[in-house]
Amino acid sequence: MKYIAEITIMPLKEILDPQGKAVKSGLSNLGIKNISEVRIGKHISLEMEASSKEEAEKNAEMACKKLLANLIMENYSYVVKEA
Amino acid sequence: MKYIAEITIMPLKEILDPQGKAVKSGLSNLGIKNISEVRIGKHISLEMEASSKEEAEKNAEMACKKLLANLIMENYSYVVKEA
Repeated sequence: MKYIAEITIMPLKEILDPQGKAVKSGLSNLGIKNISEVRIGKHISLEMEASSKEEAEKNAEMACKKLLANLIMENYSYVVKEA
Repeated sequence: MKYIAEITIMPLKEILDPQGKAVKSGLSNLGIKNISEVRIGKHISLEMEASSKEEAEKNAEMACKKLLANLIMENYSYVVKEA
């Protein structure tokens, strides 16, 4: 069966996000001035073949831990759904 | 009132995603071989002060259109919720 894992990887709250700061001032220059914080991370969508939702979740977890996220600076979350 | 807009920006389906291809082969090298497609985009969380959910959504929409997304190559979606 086909599953899609939607993975979001964000920099930890404690860590400075210079890209977010740049976007914040960019938005302010465009006239959107009521923004208090911007944080920028990655979104990854994995399409996979798996026999069950549990297996698909295991794959997504492993992909995050072993390759996609740097756990020292980032945290991850994911949602697995049927394609 | 405080709102958070969670914005996801992904490359269009029709467009090649070389970063996704690289991650796919990386996952395969790690033993996760049942992945059929990987696409990589951005996730942006905007924290803002707004008088209503509608106003917050308008801000998120404007931020996507004017600064965050390149509409020729990417599409965007967002969810606004109370902080």
